[in-house]
Amino acid sequence: MQVSIACTEHNLKSRNGEDRLLSKQSSAAPNVVNAARAKFRTVAIIARSLGTFTPQHHISLKESTAKQTGMKYRNLGKSGLRVSCLGLGTWVTFGGQISDEVAERLMTIAYESGVNLFDTAEVYAAGKAEVILGSIIKKKGWRRSSLVITTKLYWGGKAETERGLSRKHIIEGLKGSLQRLQLEYVDVVFANRPDSNTPMEEIVRAMTHVINQGMAMYWGTSRWSAMEIMEAYSVARQFNMIPPVCEQAEYHLFQREKVEVQLPELYHKICYQWLKERIVSEEGRKQQNKLKDLSPIAERLGCTLPQLAVAWCLRNEGVSSVLLGSSTPEQLIENLGAIQVLPKMTSHVVNEIDNILRNKPYSKKDYRS
Amino acid sequence: MQVSIACTEHNLKSRNGEDRLLSKQSSAAPNVVNAARAKFRTVAIIARSLGTFTPQHHISLKESTAKQTGMKYRNLGKSGLRVSCLGLGTWVTFGGQISDEVAERLMTIAYESGVNLFDTAEVYAAGKAEVILGSIIKKKGWRRSSLVITTKLYWGGKAETERGLSRKHIIEGLKGSLQRLQLEYVDVVFANRPDSNTPMEEIVRAMTHVINQGMAMYWGTSRWSAMEIMEAYSVARQFNMIPPVCEQAEYHLFQREKVEVQLPELYHKICYQWLKERIVSEEGRKQQNKLKDLSPIAERLGCTLPQLAVAWCLRNEGVSSVLLGSSTPEQLIENLGAIQVLPKMTSHVVNEIDNILRNKPYSKKDYRS
Amino acid sequence: MQVSIACTEHNLKSRNGEDRLLSKQSSAAPNVVNAARAKFRTVAIIARSLGTFTPQHHISLKESTAKQTGMKYRNLGKSGLRVSCLGLGTWVTFGGQISDEVAERLMTIAYESGVNLFDTAEVYAAGKAEVILGSIIKKKGWRRSSLVITTKLYWGGKAETERGLSRKHIIEGLKGSLQRLQLEYVDVVFANRPDSNTPMEEIVRAMTHVINQGMAMYWGTSRWSAMEIMEAYSVARQFNMIPPVCEQAEYHLFQREKVEVQLPELYHKICYQWLKERIVSEEGRKQQNKLKDLSPIAERLGCTLPQLAVAWCLRNEGVSSVLLGSSTPEQLIENLGAIQVLPKMTSHVVNEIDNILRNKPYSKKDYRS
Amino acid sequence: MQVSIACTEHNLKSRNGEDRLLSKQSSAAPNVVNAARAKFRTVAIIARSLGTFTPQHHISLKESTAKQTGMKYRNLGKSGLRVSCLGLGTWVTFGGQISDEVAERLMTIAYESGVNLFDTAEVYAAGKAEVILGSIIKKKGWRRSSLVITTKLYWGGKAETERGLSRKHIIEGLKGSLQRLQLEYVDVVFANRPDSNTPMEEIVRAMTHVINQGMAMYWGTSRWSAMEIMEAYSVARQFNMIPPVCEQAEYHLFQREKVEVQLPELYHKICYQWLKERIVSEEGRKQQNKLKDLSPIAERLGCTLPQLAVAWCLRNEGVSSVLLGSSTPEQLIENLGAIQVLPKMTSHVVNEIDNILRNKPYSKKDYRS
Repeated sequence: MQVSIACTEHNLKSRNGEDRLLSKQSSAAPNVVNAARAKFRTVAIIARSLGTFTPQHHISLKESTAKQTGMKYRNLGKSGLRVSCLGLGTWVTFGGQISDEVAERLMTIAYESGVNLFDTAEVYAAGKAEVILGSIIKKKGWRRSSLVITTKLYWGGKAETERGLSRKHIIEGLKGSLQRLQLEYVDVVFANRPDSNTPMEEIVRAMTHVINQGMAMYWGTSRWSAMEIMEAYSVARQFNMIPPVCEQAEYHLFQREKVEVQLPELYHKICYQWLKERIVSEEGRKQQNKLKDLSPIAERLGCTLPQLAVAWCLRNEGVSSVLLGSSTPEQLIENLGAIQVLPKMTSHVVNEIDNILRNKPYSKKDYRS
Repeated sequence: MQVSIACTEHNLKSRNGEDRLLSKQSSAAPNVVNAARAKFRTVAIIARSLGTFTPQHHISLKESTAKQTGMKYRNLGKSGLRVSCLGLGTWVTFGGQISDEVAERLMTIAYESGVNLFDTAEVYAAGKAEVILGSIIKKKGWRRSSLVITTKLYWGGKAETERGLSRKHIIEGLKGSLQRLQLEYVDVVFANRPDSNTPMEEIVRAMTHVINQGMAMYWGTSRWSAMEIMEAYSVARQFNMIPPVCEQAEYHLFQREKVEVQLPELYHKICYQWLKERIVSEEGRKQQNKLKDLSPIAERLGCTLPQLAVAWCLRNEGVSSVLLGSSTPEQLIENLGAIQVLPKMTSHVVNEIDNILRNKPYSKKDYRS
Repeated sequence: MQVSIACTEHNLKSRNGEDRLLSKQSSAAPNVVNAARAKFRTVAIIARSLGTFTPQHHISLKESTAKQTGMKYRNLGKSGLRVSCLGLGTWVTFGGQISDEVAERLMTIAYESGVNLFDTAEVYAAGKAEVILGSIIKKKGWRRSSLVITTKLYWGGKAETERGLSRKHIIEGLKGSLQRLQLEYVDVVFANRPDSNTPMEEIVRAMTHVINQGMAMYWGTSRWSAMEIMEAYSVARQFNMIPPVCEQAEYHLFQREKVEVQLPELYHKICYQWLKERIVSEEGRKQQNKLKDLSPIAERLGCTLPQLAVAWCLRNEGVSSVLLGSSTPEQLIENLGAIQVLPKMTSHVVNEIDNILRNKPYSKKDYRS
Repeated sequence: MQVSIACTEHNLKSRNGEDRLLSKQSSAAPNVVNAARAKFRTVAIIARSLGTFTPQHHISLKESTAKQTGMKYRNLGKSGLRVSCLGLGTWVTFGGQISDEVAERLMTIAYESGVNLFDTAEVYAAGKAEVILGSIIKKKGWRRSSLVITTKLYWGGKAETERGLSRKHIIEGLKGSLQRLQLEYVDVVFANRPDSNTPMEEIVRAMTHVINQGMAMYWGTSRWSAMEIMEAYSVARQFNMIPPVCEQAEYHLFQREKVEVQLPELYHKICYQWLKERIVSEEGRKQQNKLKDLSPIAERLGCTLPQLAVAWCLRNEGVSSVLLGSSTPEQLIENLGAIQVLPKMTSHVVNEIDNILRNKPYSKKDYRS
């Protein structure tokens, strides 16, 4: 099992006081508070892939570093595709909170910092995120072969036929995304959340079809349980179809279980709304306190708390990429700085953090060590 | 085994007196009598699919209801495709008995009532039904992804090569339908009646080909016996091809055997002509009498006899959709009202109807209950 | 095993005296002698297919008759495709001996007589036969779906890469044929003669590829031994590819062995030149004498000798179609008349012919009776 | 196991004195020295293919000779494709050392001498070699079906995503080559060097995809070990995909081991730089001395040393083609002359050469004899 790319967001609503703890700069103004939220959001994104089961195909996640930018690259899940270990998400900000000009500046900063992974989805800002992403790529003239563009099929269509992961929805949904993106193909198409109402054979067959038709290079899962990924994999093998290469999962300081231990049934029904609510709940308050306790470590390492959180995710070599949801150039630059914090994540520091978090999952067999 | 969509018609010739019993409105004029016939026709259409045999892929036909229209949606056969439980057939009326204006009004009423399934065939009105259906869809600008368009390959070509289910006929026949429909693909292509003169491998291979070429999303059978469907399924598994997702079968008050019990050899040689004759035969007269006996139940439930008949079909949760062959807006609206009758189909009412019909098929093992 | 379509030619050079025996009309003029040759040629064409091995897929060669023309239709080999039992070959005459006007008249007569099978090849008249065939089809406006167009890949290219049945030659050769024919696809593409220098897997894979790409509906073999057909079939099954549906073989009064008995190694090295020579050889003279002896039978049945020869081929119900190589309208009409002779081919007449020919092949097991 | 096509280069830097030994003409001027280098280079290219394992598909490498040019043709690896036993490489010269006019003259001489194999790669002169090759083919109007065009996917892209043999890089890389070549497809696409960082399944699946999409006729490996080729082959069989047909390997007087004996792990990490260095090293000096000792043999046979070296490669009947890297018309004509030297390579001469080289690999089982 390997951990690969990642994307979700906490989308925290402004909660004043606590937010200030999240960042050094978060002193007073609501603006700064917003920035703090966005920074924390970056941590919330991670993914896990189903590794190859046969030992002869085992891939060591060989990390390479770009000389100019210092960016690190890892294989996406079990594929041969090389992605920057920090990616840029477009989920809420593009077409939503930020202007097209800021979107372009963010993408330019990311691209010039060595980021090659840009993640979007058909539902982000009702398709507008895809439109903006696509038009910036076209305008900038970046070579297609140097970019990894991923999109996600949600179930958010208005019509009943646009819900679920039927062959019809997968094909039509991806065609729609490609039109909005002005692209011939995406690199990875994710099936967001499993659909127990559609036979797994139909899902895998449709994903194999869009890959064979040249509409995508790979397919992955998003928020699926290990059990469901396993079923997709078996069905692909049974009918000689193409298996998924990676899983997008939530992974951050307070969400370690799924990624770090292989539990077969994991938050099957996590939804957006529930995340929003949790953050303002009692549990959320406790988490804020723990973040407060992490601040001295960040200060000692000479970094911000968000940088510490991103670096903590990256220390897990099973993680291919952490998607950043930055909405201002300043935040993005700050987040990208996590690369420099990574070498400071010694086992001593990681233990210190573990002692504060007290949520290290118990596993009889450590697959990563 | 699951029951899914449906389409055939009785095409009853005007038989005066008896017809009047079929509908509350059917009082005197020949017009009204025609309406009555058409209403009964709606009941005559149903389909059955070959379910998945492996229990792990079992799909519960989870029904959902649209808030605005009250329309219910079910999975089409064993696929993940969601179809309205009432569909609109275009078989005789489009391009035939009714004008293009009425056709458009019927489709608009259906669409706005939540109907997303529109069924046609290459032979309906010699292709004219497809032309009209296609041009209305284009004119109305309905999103393709919100529609489920199905067509059927008949053996009605003039040339010898256009008969049977040869690879040549399947591919050329479907291409012709798509041109008339002005569509890139249909959602389901049905093979009407099995063709013992063509190897099953050739049929399944050709159906898989048109799906892989993007000309159809799924394929189904129409009026095939369980034995023949089983052979198609086995051949698909043997050569790793795409199996059919559903079967269109006749299912109504007087045709329960095939859908309700799994008999391997079922009316292998039913044909149109025979249906026409049967209705005026002795057996037909008996059926008219039974309909007379059902009238009080309909009146008690506050609905018309056709509504009762449609609701009776829908009570079978194995049925994905009942196709309506309405030819006037009034009939269509009446038929769509069956949705409201469905909750009234209690086991008590169903038993009452059974006692009148006295044709409940005997099955050692009830697959549905 | 089933016998299906057919094509080769004797291309007999004018040999005066003997030729006169071949036809009633062949009295004196060289013109008439030519006609006689051409008539005999029609008999030389036949094909055999590899039947399905599994009994459940067994197809009975159900013959049907067109009411208007009296033409009979049979399944092409083991496919579901219906072909007229008489087809029109274009091998030497089109683009060669006859003018384009005569070619068009021949095709028109054939088409209006119910012939739907037209056979050509890339090498016939160096591609000109295909060009003429294609342009006549286009000019006449015949529906593509009513025609069965077949072509053959020869090894006659100038370049080394255009020889053999490499993937490159199969794909490029067929593309060339389609361009000359102005068609999107042919119905059957034949691989002429086996190529021991190319792996069978490569041949079957390339044939499957052109079918999947929509460039052909089926593929067949031509002049392959039963052993080689069997290998193609096994390789297709092994890698889940598309097996050939029929074999074109020489079959006439003096060439019965291959078609009537399943011998594994049959005239592996028959070539054109050898055929030409044989006809003027000692063996050829004996055959002419036998034809002389058959004349009284033809006269008694009220037909010409060529008609008798064609009808004799058709009496074998394993034969799908006999290709006619007529070069004048008169000959073609005469040849088409063989249909009327077919009912007169009683077992008594067939025995009489057998006693004259004395070449009935011996088989322990008669697959056809 | 069969040996097939070939391509690499020594790219020897000018080393004055020694170079003069390499060619009769190499007397004084630096120009002549360059020519000498280029001539030696021609010998350095060879390839080996993974033969079919099942004996029934065994292909005898039947060699044929063109009457007009005397050029010999062999099957490319285990495919049915016929290639000239001398091919033209474009690696350094095209778009680099030589002008476009000279490139055209070289190609014309080669083509008119019966050469049908032209080899290029995306990295040669940063894509310029492909552009020149493509434009000459277009200008000359040579029939595509008479040419065998091969290209190689290197890992030389600037972006991280353009390194390795990921599905993305294989597809995008080949698309780029085709655009530069102005071709619809290449005949063989080679995967240069294995990529242990990408699963073999992904590589074979992507190669099968580009073949199925019509972008290539075959695929091969370049500089892979027998072990790695074996893995590609097994994976292709496991998932019913298309196996590679040949391997390009270095094969010349001083590099015999890989091609002549089947060792499972062979110079796994040969790289360009190392080759350059080796030639000027102590080992290189010894090789120059051996070449000096071979000169009398060449003189006795009435040929130049480069001709002797090419003929020595061709004597191995497992070799499909030796690629020539000539950069002047004179060299090319000289190199093509090796065909005439081939018949003089008697076992006596080969033994003489072996005694001088003293590098004949030891093999318990000689697969070639």
